[in-house]
Amino acid sequence: MIDIGLIGIGTGNPDHVTLAAIKAMQAADLVLLPRKGEDKAELIDLRREICAAHLPDLSRVVEFDLPVRDGRAEYLDGVNDWHDAIAGTWLREIQTHLPGGGRVVLLVWGDPSLYDSTLRITERLALGGMAVTTRVVPGVTSLSVLTAAHAIPLNTLGAPVLITTGRRLRENGWPVDADAVAVMLDAGGAFSTLDPSGLHIWWGAYVGMPQESLISGPLAEVAQTILDRRAALRAQHGWIMDIYLLHRAPRQG
Amino acid sequence: MIDIGLIGIGTGNPDHVTLAAIKAMQAADLVLLPRKGEDKAELIDLRREICAAHLPDLSRVVEFDLPVRDGRAEYLDGVNDWHDAIAGTWLREIQTHLPGGGRVVLLVWGDPSLYDSTLRITERLALGGMAVTTRVVPGVTSLSVLTAAHAIPLNTLGAPVLITTGRRLRENGWPVDADAVAVMLDAGGAFSTLDPSGLHIWWGAYVGMPQESLISGPLAEVAQTILDRRAALRAQHGWIMDIYLLHRAPRQG
Repeated sequence: MIDIGLIGIGTGNPDHVTLAAIKAMQAADLVLLPRKGEDKAELIDLRREICAAHLPDLSRVVEFDLPVRDGRAEYLDGVNDWHDAIAGTWLREIQTHLPGGGRVVLLVWGDPSLYDSTLRITERLALGGMAVTTRVVPGVTSLSVLTAAHAIPLNTLGAPVLITTGRRLRENGWPVDADAVAVMLDAGGAFSTLDPSGLHIWWGAYVGMPQESLISGPLAEVAQTILDRRAALRAQHGWIMDIYLLHRAPRQG
Repeated sequence: MIDIGLIGIGTGNPDHVTLAAIKAMQAADLVLLPRKGEDKAELIDLRREICAAHLPDLSRVVEFDLPVRDGRAEYLDGVNDWHDAIAGTWLREIQTHLPGGGRVVLLVWGDPSLYDSTLRITERLALGGMAVTTRVVPGVTSLSVLTAAHAIPLNTLGAPVLITTGRRLRENGWPVDADAVAVMLDAGGAFSTLDPSGLHIWWGAYVGMPQESLISGPLAEVAQTILDRRAALRAQHGWIMDIYLLHRAPRQG
Protein backbone atom coordinates (compact mmCIF):
# COMPACT_ATOMS: atom_id res chain seq x y z
CA MET A 1 0.00 0.00 0.00
CA ILE A 2 1.36 3.35 -1.10
CA ASP A 3 0.13 6.64 0.30
CA ILE A 4 1.05 9.37 -2.16
CA GLY A 5 1.19 12.92 -0.83
CA LEU A 6 1.27 15.68 -3.43
CA ILE A 7 2.61 18.74 -1.68
CA GLY A 8 2.18 22.17 -3.19
CA ILE A 9 5.32 24.20 -2.48
CA GLY A 10 4.38 27.42 -4.23
CA THR A 11 6.10 28.88 -7.24
CA GLY A 12 9.70 29.34 -6.23
CA ASN A 13 9.83 31.29 -2.98
CA PRO A 14 10.89 28.78 -0.31
CA ASP A 15 8.98 30.86 2.25
CA HIS A 16 5.74 30.12 0.40
CA VAL A 17 5.66 26.59 1.80
CA THR A 18 2.98 26.03 4.42
CA LEU A 19 3.34 24.43 7.83
CA ALA A 20 1.15 21.58 6.54
CA ALA A 21 3.61 20.99 3.70
CA ILE A 22 6.53 20.83 6.11
CA LYS A 23 4.69 18.38 8.38
CA ALA A 24 3.80 16.13 5.44
CA MET A 25 7.42 16.12 4.23
CA GLN A 26 8.68 15.25 7.69
CA ALA A 27 6.22 12.36 8.01
CA ALA A 28 7.22 10.81 4.67
CA ASP A 29 9.15 7.57 4.19
CA LEU A 30 10.31 8.65 0.73
CA VAL A 31 10.58 12.07 -0.92
CA LEU A 32 10.79 11.87 -4.72
CA LEU A 33 12.54 14.77 -6.46
CA PRO A 34 12.12 14.59 -10.23
CA ARG A 35 14.83 16.25 -12.36
CA LYS A 36 13.46 18.00 -15.43
CA GLY A 37 16.72 18.63 -17.27
CA GLU A 38 19.34 21.34 -17.18
CA ASP A 39 17.09 24.09 -18.52
CA LYS A 40 15.02 24.19 -15.35
CA ALA A 41 17.79 23.53 -12.85
CA GLU A 42 16.32 26.21 -10.57
CA LEU A 43 13.27 24.04 -9.97
CA ILE A 44 15.19 21.05 -8.64
CA ASP A 45 17.44 23.42 -6.71
CA LEU A 46 14.34 24.91 -5.06
CA ARG A 47 13.11 21.47 -4.02
CA ARG A 48 16.56 20.54 -2.70
CA GLU A 49 16.67 23.78 -0.72
CA ILE A 50 13.24 23.12 0.81
CA CYS A 51 14.24 19.55 1.75
CA ALA A 52 17.52 20.69 3.28
CA ALA A 53 15.73 23.37 5.31
CA HIS A 54 13.02 21.14 6.76
CA LEU A 55 14.16 17.50 6.72
CA PRO A 56 16.58 16.35 9.40
CA ASP A 57 17.31 13.16 7.42
CA LEU A 58 18.02 13.55 3.70
CA SER A 59 18.59 9.83 3.15
CA ARG A 60 14.89 9.46 2.37
CA VAL A 61 15.18 11.95 -0.51
CA VAL A 62 15.62 10.31 -3.93
CA GLU A 63 16.28 12.23 -7.13
CA PHE A 64 15.48 10.79 -10.53
CA ASP A 65 15.32 11.97 -14.14
CA LEU A 66 11.96 12.61 -15.77
CA PRO A 67 11.44 11.27 -19.28
CA VAL A 68 11.72 13.86 -22.04
CA ARG A 69 8.53 15.02 -23.70
CA ASP A 70 8.00 14.23 -27.35
CA GLY A 71 7.11 17.59 -28.87
CA ARG A 72 6.42 16.14 -32.31
CA ALA A 73 3.18 14.34 -31.44
CA GLU A 74 -0.26 15.91 -31.50
CA TYR A 75 -0.75 17.88 -28.27
CA LEU A 76 -3.13 15.67 -26.29
CA ASP A 77 -1.62 12.34 -27.36
CA GLY A 78 1.83 13.73 -26.67
CA VAL A 79 0.84 14.79 -23.16
CA ASN A 80 -0.88 11.50 -22.41
CA ASP A 81 2.10 9.43 -23.57
CA TRP A 82 4.39 11.68 -21.55
CA HIS A 83 2.26 11.22 -18.41
CA ASP A 84 2.35 7.44 -18.95
CA ALA A 85 6.12 7.58 -19.16
CA ILE A 86 6.39 9.70 -15.99
CA ALA A 87 4.05 7.37 -14.08
CA GLY A 88 6.26 4.45 -15.12
CA THR A 89 9.30 6.26 -13.76
CA TRP A 90 7.57 7.01 -10.44
CA LEU A 91 6.46 3.39 -10.16
CA ARG A 92 10.03 2.15 -10.65
CA GLU A 93 11.43 4.54 -8.04
CA ILE A 94 8.76 3.65 -5.50
CA GLN A 95 9.21 -0.10 -6.01
CA THR A 96 13.00 0.27 -5.68
CA HIS A 97 13.09 2.47 -2.60
CA LEU A 98 9.90 1.48 -0.81
CA PRO A 99 9.26 -2.17 -1.71
CA GLY A 100 7.14 -2.74 1.41
CA GLY A 101 4.94 0.32 0.78
CA GLY A 102 4.65 3.47 2.86
CA ARG A 103 4.29 7.21 2.55
CA VAL A 104 5.71 8.85 -0.57
CA VAL A 105 5.62 12.59 -1.16
CA LEU A 106 6.33 14.70 -4.21
CA LEU A 107 6.97 18.41 -3.92
CA VAL A 108 4.82 20.00 -6.59
CA TRP A 109 5.92 23.32 -8.02
CA GLY A 110 2.79 25.46 -8.19
CA ASP A 111 -0.43 24.29 -6.68
CA PRO A 112 -1.22 20.63 -7.39
CA SER A 113 -4.74 21.50 -8.48
CA LEU A 114 -4.15 24.27 -10.97
CA TYR A 115 -3.16 23.25 -14.48
CA ASP A 116 -1.01 20.58 -12.94
CA SER A 117 -0.55 17.12 -14.34
CA THR A 118 0.64 15.48 -11.15
CA LEU A 119 -2.81 14.27 -10.12
CA ARG A 120 -3.34 12.71 -13.54
CA ILE A 121 -0.01 10.95 -13.31
CA THR A 122 -0.96 9.63 -9.87
CA GLU A 123 -4.14 8.11 -11.28
CA ARG A 124 -1.96 6.11 -13.68
CA LEU A 125 -0.14 4.47 -10.77
CA ALA A 126 -3.39 2.85 -9.66
CA LEU A 127 -4.03 1.76 -13.24
CA GLY A 128 -0.55 0.20 -13.15
CA GLY A 129 -1.71 -2.23 -10.47
CA MET A 130 -0.38 -0.42 -7.40
CA ALA A 131 -2.70 0.06 -4.40
CA VAL A 132 -2.58 3.82 -3.99
CA THR A 133 -4.23 6.44 -1.83
CA THR A 134 -3.67 10.09 -2.73
CA ARG A 135 -3.62 13.08 -0.43
CA VAL A 136 -3.05 16.63 -1.59
CA VAL A 137 -1.56 19.43 0.47
CA PRO A 138 -2.68 22.65 -1.20
CA GLY A 139 -0.07 25.28 -2.02
CA VAL A 140 0.06 28.88 -3.09
CA THR A 141 -0.82 29.19 -6.78
CA SER A 142 1.10 31.25 -9.32
CA LEU A 143 -2.09 33.26 -9.82
CA SER A 144 -2.07 34.27 -6.16
CA VAL A 145 1.64 35.11 -6.34
CA LEU A 146 1.05 37.26 -9.44
CA THR A 147 -1.81 39.25 -7.93
CA ALA A 148 0.06 39.59 -4.62
CA ALA A 149 3.16 40.90 -6.41
CA HIS A 150 1.05 43.53 -8.15
CA ALA A 151 -1.06 44.09 -4.99
CA ILE A 152 -4.31 43.78 -6.94
CA PRO A 153 -7.47 41.70 -6.50
CA LEU A 154 -8.05 38.97 -9.06
CA ASN A 155 -11.37 40.37 -10.13
CA THR A 156 -13.56 43.40 -10.07
CA LEU A 157 -16.28 43.30 -7.42
CA GLY A 158 -18.21 40.01 -7.64
CA ALA A 159 -17.27 39.61 -11.32
CA PRO A 160 -16.17 36.37 -13.01
CA VAL A 161 -12.62 35.47 -14.03
CA LEU A 162 -11.70 33.01 -16.75
CA ILE A 163 -8.50 31.04 -16.15
CA THR A 164 -7.24 29.83 -19.49
CA THR A 165 -4.13 29.04 -21.53
CA GLY A 166 -2.29 31.06 -24.14
CA ARG A 167 -3.30 28.47 -26.70
CA ARG A 168 -7.02 28.90 -25.95
CA LEU A 169 -6.81 32.67 -25.86
CA ARG A 170 -5.23 32.64 -29.33
CA GLU A 171 -7.86 30.24 -30.67
CA ASN A 172 -10.96 31.67 -29.04
CA GLY A 173 -10.22 35.35 -28.47
CA TRP A 174 -11.71 37.31 -25.56
CA PRO A 175 -14.35 35.25 -23.71
CA VAL A 176 -17.98 36.35 -23.62
CA ASP A 177 -18.43 35.40 -19.95
CA ALA A 178 -15.80 37.48 -18.18
CA ASP A 179 -14.14 40.88 -18.07
CA ALA A 180 -11.08 39.37 -16.38
CA VAL A 181 -8.89 36.67 -17.90
CA ALA A 182 -5.91 34.96 -16.26
CA VAL A 183 -3.57 33.29 -18.73
CA MET A 184 -1.16 30.49 -17.86
CA LEU A 185 1.01 28.25 -20.03
CA ASP A 186 1.41 30.81 -22.77
CA ALA A 187 4.18 29.81 -25.16
CA GLY A 188 4.54 33.53 -25.81
CA GLY A 189 2.51 36.67 -26.26
CA ALA A 190 -0.99 35.32 -26.90
CA PHE A 191 -2.20 38.70 -25.60
CA SER A 192 -0.84 40.31 -28.76
CA THR A 193 -3.59 38.60 -30.78
CA LEU A 194 -6.24 40.68 -28.93
CA ASP A 195 -7.55 44.14 -29.75
CA PRO A 196 -5.81 46.00 -26.90
CA SER A 197 -8.24 48.89 -26.59
CA GLY A 198 -9.67 49.07 -23.09
CA LEU A 199 -7.49 46.23 -21.83
CA HIS A 200 -5.10 46.44 -18.86
CA ILE A 201 -2.46 43.78 -18.21
CA TRP A 202 -0.55 42.68 -15.10
CA TRP A 203 2.25 40.39 -16.23
CA GLY A 204 4.83 38.44 -14.26
CA ALA A 205 7.63 36.04 -15.12
CA TYR A 206 9.19 33.61 -12.61
CA VAL A 207 6.66 34.86 -10.03
CA GLY A 208 7.86 34.13 -6.50
CA MET A 209 11.43 33.40 -7.62
CA PRO A 210 14.46 35.65 -7.12
CA GLN A 211 14.45 36.55 -10.84
CA GLU A 212 10.77 37.65 -10.69
CA SER A 213 9.99 40.31 -13.28
CA LEU A 214 6.77 42.37 -13.35
CA ILE A 215 5.20 44.71 -15.90
CA SER A 216 1.75 46.29 -15.82
CA GLY A 217 -0.14 48.90 -17.73
CA PRO A 218 -2.59 49.47 -20.59
CA LEU A 219 -2.02 46.58 -23.00
CA ALA A 220 -1.65 48.94 -25.95
CA GLU A 221 1.28 50.66 -24.20
CA VAL A 222 3.14 47.73 -22.63
CA ALA A 223 2.56 44.77 -24.98
CA GLN A 224 5.82 45.27 -26.88
CA THR A 225 7.75 45.92 -23.65
CA ILE A 226 6.53 42.58 -22.31
CA LEU A 227 7.45 40.73 -25.50
CA ASP A 228 10.95 42.24 -25.46
CA ARG A 229 11.48 41.59 -21.74
CA ARG A 230 10.23 38.02 -22.13
CA ALA A 231 12.64 37.29 -24.98
CA ALA A 232 15.56 38.78 -23.06
CA LEU A 233 14.76 36.85 -19.87
CA ARG A 234 14.33 33.61 -21.75
CA ALA A 235 17.72 34.08 -23.41
CA GLN A 236 19.29 34.94 -20.06
CA HIS A 237 17.86 32.05 -18.00
CA GLY A 238 17.39 29.40 -20.69
CA TRP A 239 13.70 28.95 -19.81
CA ILE A 240 10.74 31.09 -18.86
CA MET A 241 7.43 30.64 -17.09
CA ASP A 242 5.09 33.60 -17.12
CA ILE A 243 1.51 34.35 -16.22
CA TYR A 244 -0.71 37.36 -16.64
CA LEU A 245 -4.05 38.86 -15.78
CA LEU A 246 -6.07 40.96 -18.21
CA HIS A 247 -8.98 43.19 -17.22
CA ARG A 248 -11.22 45.11 -19.54
CA ALA A 249 -13.59 47.87 -18.64
CA PRO A 250 -16.96 46.22 -17.88
CA ARG A 251 -19.48 46.30 -20.68
CA GLN A 252 -22.16 48.92 -20.22
CA GLY A 253 -25.85 48.11 -19.94
CA MET B 1 4.01 56.44 6.75
CA ILE B 2 2.07 53.23 7.08
CA ASP B 3 3.16 49.95 5.51
CA ILE B 4 0.12 47.70 5.29
CA GLY B 5 0.77 43.98 4.94
CA LEU B 6 -2.18 41.87 3.89
CA ILE B 7 -1.37 38.32 4.90
CA GLY B 8 -3.30 35.43 3.42
CA ILE B 9 -3.77 32.80 6.14
CA GLY B 10 -5.74 30.23 4.16
CA THR B 11 -9.29 29.15 4.87
CA GLY B 12 -9.29 27.91 8.42
CA ASN B 13 -6.55 25.32 8.82
CA PRO B 14 -3.84 27.00 10.94
CA ASP B 15 -1.28 24.75 9.21
CA HIS B 16 -2.10 26.41 5.89
CA VAL B 17 -0.14 29.52 6.88
CA THR B 18 3.12 29.94 4.99
CA LEU B 19 6.54 30.70 6.41
CA ALA B 20 6.35 34.08 4.65
CA ALA B 21 3.10 34.85 6.52
CA ILE B 22 4.71 34.00 9.86
CA LYS B 23 7.74 36.18 9.10
CA ALA B 24 5.54 39.12 8.10
CA MET B 25 3.47 38.79 11.29
CA GLN B 26 6.61 38.67 13.42
CA ALA B 27 8.01 41.80 11.75
CA ALA B 28 4.84 43.84 12.32
CA ASP B 29 4.45 46.73 14.75
CA LEU B 30 0.68 46.24 14.88
CA VAL B 31 -1.55 43.26 14.05
CA LEU B 32 -5.18 44.24 13.49
CA LEU B 33 -7.76 41.53 14.16
CA PRO B 34 -11.24 42.58 12.99
CA ARG B 35 -14.21 40.97 14.76
CA LYS B 36 -17.09 40.17 12.42
CA GLY B 37 -19.78 39.44 14.99
CA GLU B 38 -20.79 36.38 16.95
CA ASP B 39 -21.98 34.40 13.94
CA LYS B 40 -18.46 33.96 12.64
CA ALA B 41 -16.66 33.61 15.95
CA GLU B 42 -14.58 30.77 14.47
CA LEU B 43 -12.87 33.25 12.16
CA ILE B 44 -11.58 35.51 14.92
CA ASP B 45 -10.69 32.43 16.97
CA LEU B 46 -8.59 31.18 14.05
CA ARG B 47 -6.70 34.46 13.83
CA ARG B 48 -6.16 34.49 17.61
CA GLU B 49 -4.85 30.94 17.44
CA ILE B 50 -2.41 31.82 14.63
CA CYS B 51 -1.17 34.90 16.54
CA ALA B 52 -0.73 32.91 19.75
CA ALA B 53 1.21 30.20 17.92
CA HIS B 54 3.63 32.49 16.11
CA LEU B 55 3.92 35.82 17.97
CA PRO B 56 6.07 35.95 21.08
CA ASP B 57 4.53 39.32 22.03
CA LEU B 58 0.74 39.62 21.83
CA SER B 59 0.70 43.24 23.04
CA ARG B 60 0.93 44.36 19.41
CA VAL B 61 -2.29 42.54 18.54
CA VAL B 62 -5.39 44.76 18.58
CA GLU B 63 -8.93 43.48 18.13
CA PHE B 64 -11.73 45.72 16.93
CA ASP B 65 -15.32 45.40 15.74
CA LEU B 66 -16.14 45.70 12.07
CA PRO B 67 -19.14 47.80 11.08
CA VAL B 68 -22.24 45.82 10.19
CA ARG B 69 -23.23 45.58 6.55
CA ASP B 70 -26.46 47.17 5.43
CA GLY B 71 -28.21 44.37 3.57
CA ARG B 72 -31.09 46.59 2.47
CA ALA B 73 -29.16 48.70 -0.04
CA GLU B 74 -28.59 47.79 -3.66
CA TYR B 75 -25.70 45.31 -3.86
CA LEU B 76 -22.87 47.46 -5.24
CA ASP B 77 -23.74 50.63 -3.31
CA GLY B 78 -24.19 48.57 -0.17
CA VAL B 79 -20.76 46.98 -0.59
CA ASN B 80 -19.07 50.28 -1.38
CA ASP B 81 -20.57 52.01 1.65
CA TRP B 82 -19.60 49.06 3.79
CA HIS B 83 -16.00 49.18 2.54
CA ASP B 84 -15.89 52.92 3.30
CA ALA B 85 -17.06 52.21 6.83
CA ILE B 86 -14.48 49.44 7.32
CA ALA B 87 -11.68 51.67 6.00
CA GLY B 88 -12.73 54.34 8.50
CA THR B 89 -12.51 51.81 11.32
CA TRP B 90 -9.02 50.67 10.23
CA LEU B 91 -7.87 54.26 10.00
CA ARG B 92 -9.03 54.99 13.55
CA GLU B 93 -7.31 51.89 14.95
CA ILE B 94 -4.05 52.66 13.12
CA GLN B 95 -4.04 56.29 14.24
CA THR B 96 -4.74 55.24 17.83
CA HIS B 97 -2.18 52.44 18.13
CA LEU B 98 0.50 53.54 15.68
CA PRO B 99 0.41 57.37 15.67
CA GLY B 100 4.01 57.56 14.43
CA GLY B 101 3.46 55.15 11.55
CA GLY B 102 5.00 51.71 11.03
CA ARG B 103 4.17 48.24 9.83
CA VAL B 104 0.56 47.09 10.18
CA VAL B 105 -0.60 43.64 9.17
CA LEU B 106 -4.04 42.14 8.74
CA LEU B 107 -4.56 38.40 8.64
CA VAL B 108 -6.85 37.79 5.69
CA TRP B 109 -9.05 34.74 5.76
CA GLY B 110 -8.77 33.21 2.28
CA ASP B 111 -6.30 34.53 -0.22
CA PRO B 112 -6.13 38.33 -0.34
CA SER B 113 -6.47 38.36 -4.11
CA LEU B 114 -9.40 36.06 -4.71
CA TYR B 115 -12.82 37.63 -4.34
CA ASP B 116 -11.46 39.53 -1.40
CA SER B 117 -12.36 43.07 -0.52
CA THR B 118 -9.36 43.81 1.66
CA LEU B 119 -7.32 45.32 -1.16
CA ARG B 120 -10.18 47.64 -2.07
CA ILE B 121 -10.51 48.74 1.53
CA THR B 122 -6.77 49.44 1.65
CA GLU B 123 -7.07 51.74 -1.34
CA ARG B 124 -9.55 53.81 0.64
CA LEU B 125 -6.95 54.47 3.34
CA ALA B 126 -4.81 56.32 0.83
CA LEU B 127 -7.88 58.26 -0.30
CA GLY B 128 -8.41 59.14 3.37
CA GLY B 129 -5.16 61.08 3.34
CA MET B 130 -2.86 58.48 4.88
CA ALA B 131 0.49 57.76 3.19
CA VAL B 132 0.23 54.04 2.59
CA THR B 133 2.26 51.32 0.92
CA THR B 134 0.65 47.92 0.51
CA ARG B 135 2.32 44.53 0.41
CA VAL B 136 0.48 41.26 -0.05
CA VAL B 137 1.60 37.89 1.22
CA PRO B 138 -0.26 35.32 -0.87
CA GLY B 139 -2.13 32.53 0.87
CA VAL B 140 -3.78 29.26 0.00
CA THR B 141 -7.14 29.90 -1.69
CA SER B 142 -10.39 28.12 -0.87
CA LEU B 143 -10.38 26.84 -4.45
CA SER B 144 -7.06 25.09 -3.84
CA VAL B 145 -8.31 23.69 -0.53
CA LEU B 146 -11.47 22.39 -2.22
CA THR B 147 -9.64 20.62 -5.03
CA ALA B 148 -7.02 19.29 -2.61
CA ALA B 149 -9.71 17.88 -0.32
CA HIS B 150 -11.30 16.06 -3.26
CA ALA B 151 -7.83 15.21 -4.69
CA ILE B 152 -8.85 16.45 -8.14
CA PRO B 153 -7.28 18.87 -10.62
CA LEU B 154 -9.11 22.15 -11.15
CA ASN B 155 -9.51 21.59 -14.84
CA THR B 156 -9.42 19.02 -17.57
CA LEU B 157 -6.18 19.03 -19.55
CA GLY B 158 -5.36 22.55 -20.75
CA ALA B 159 -9.02 23.57 -20.59
CA PRO B 160 -10.37 26.86 -19.22
CA VAL B 161 -12.09 27.34 -15.86
CA LEU B 162 -14.50 30.15 -15.06
CA ILE B 163 -14.44 31.39 -11.47
CA THR B 164 -17.74 33.04 -10.73
CA THR B 165 -20.33 33.72 -8.05
CA GLY B 166 -23.61 32.02 -7.27
CA ARG B 167 -25.38 35.22 -8.24
CA ARG B 168 -23.79 35.26 -11.72
CA LEU B 169 -24.39 31.56 -12.29
CA ARG B 170 -28.08 32.08 -11.53
CA GLU B 171 -28.30 35.10 -13.81
CA ASN B 172 -26.19 33.88 -16.73
CA GLY B 173 -26.43 30.10 -16.65
CA TRP B 174 -23.61 27.87 -17.87
CA PRO B 175 -20.85 29.88 -19.55
CA VAL B 176 -20.02 29.41 -23.22
CA ASP B 177 -16.26 29.62 -22.66
CA ALA B 178 -15.57 26.81 -20.22
CA ASP B 179 -16.45 23.25 -19.32
CA ALA B 180 -15.36 23.84 -15.74
CA VAL B 181 -16.92 26.39 -13.39
CA ALA B 182 -15.84 27.20 -9.86
CA VAL B 183 -18.51 28.95 -7.79
CA MET B 184 -17.82 31.07 -4.72
CA LEU B 185 -20.07 33.32 -2.67
CA ASP B 186 -23.21 31.37 -3.41
CA ALA B 187 -26.02 32.38 -1.08
CA GLY B 188 -27.36 28.88 -1.64
CA GLY B 189 -27.81 26.28 -4.35
CA ALA B 190 -27.29 28.29 -7.55
CA PHE B 191 -26.31 24.95 -9.13
CA SER B 192 -29.93 23.84 -8.84
CA THR B 193 -30.87 26.37 -11.54
CA LEU B 194 -28.78 24.42 -14.11
CA ASP B 195 -29.82 21.48 -16.26
CA PRO B 196 -27.84 18.80 -14.37
CA SER B 197 -27.40 16.35 -17.24
CA GLY B 198 -23.74 15.67 -17.89
CA LEU B 199 -22.61 17.79 -14.93
CA HIS B 200 -20.43 16.57 -12.07
CA ILE B 201 -20.04 18.55 -8.84
CA TRP B 202 -17.39 18.64 -6.12
CA TRP B 203 -18.78 20.61 -3.19
CA GLY B 204 -17.24 21.65 0.10
CA ALA B 205 -18.35 23.70 3.09
CA TYR B 206 -15.95 25.25 5.64
CA VAL B 207 -13.07 23.91 3.53
CA GLY B 208 -9.89 23.67 5.58
CA MET B 209 -11.74 24.02 8.91
CA PRO B 210 -12.42 21.24 11.42
CA GLN B 211 -16.09 21.17 10.42
CA GLU B 212 -15.21 20.68 6.71
CA SER B 213 -17.91 18.79 4.83
CA LEU B 214 -17.52 17.36 1.32
CA ILE B 215 -19.94 15.90 -1.23
CA SER B 216 -19.24 14.93 -4.84
CA GLY B 217 -21.02 13.12 -7.63
CA PRO B 218 -23.20 13.60 -10.67
CA LEU B 219 -25.17 16.80 -10.05
CA ALA B 220 -28.48 15.08 -10.84
CA GLU B 221 -27.84 12.59 -8.04
CA VAL B 222 -26.33 14.76 -5.30
CA ALA B 223 -27.93 18.21 -5.73
CA GLN B 224 -30.64 17.60 -3.15
CA THR B 225 -28.17 15.96 -0.74
CA ILE B 226 -26.02 19.09 -0.91
CA LEU B 227 -28.98 21.40 -0.33
CA ASP B 228 -30.09 19.35 2.69
CA ARG B 229 -26.57 19.11 4.14
CA ARG B 230 -26.03 22.84 3.62
CA ALA B 231 -29.24 23.75 5.46
CA ALA B 232 -28.40 21.42 8.34
CA LEU B 233 -24.84 22.74 8.69
CA ARG B 234 -25.99 26.33 8.55
CA ALA B 235 -28.50 25.67 11.31
CA GLN B 236 -25.87 23.87 13.36
CA HIS B 237 -23.06 26.45 13.06
CA GLY B 238 -25.06 29.65 12.59
CA TRP B 239 -23.22 30.51 9.35
CA ILE B 240 -21.89 28.73 6.30
CA MET B 241 -19.28 29.32 3.61
CA ASP B 242 -19.22 26.86 0.76
CA ILE B 243 -17.59 26.55 -2.63
CA TYR B 244 -17.92 24.10 -5.48
CA LEU B 245 -16.50 23.04 -8.79
CA LEU B 246 -18.65 21.86 -11.69
CA HIS B 247 -17.35 19.99 -14.72
CA ARG B 248 -19.31 19.00 -17.76
CA ALA B 249 -18.31 16.54 -20.42
CA PRO B 250 -16.45 18.53 -23.10
CA ARG B 251 -18.46 19.47 -26.16
CA GLN B 252 -17.79 17.28 -29.17
CA GLY B 253 -16.44 18.62 -32.45
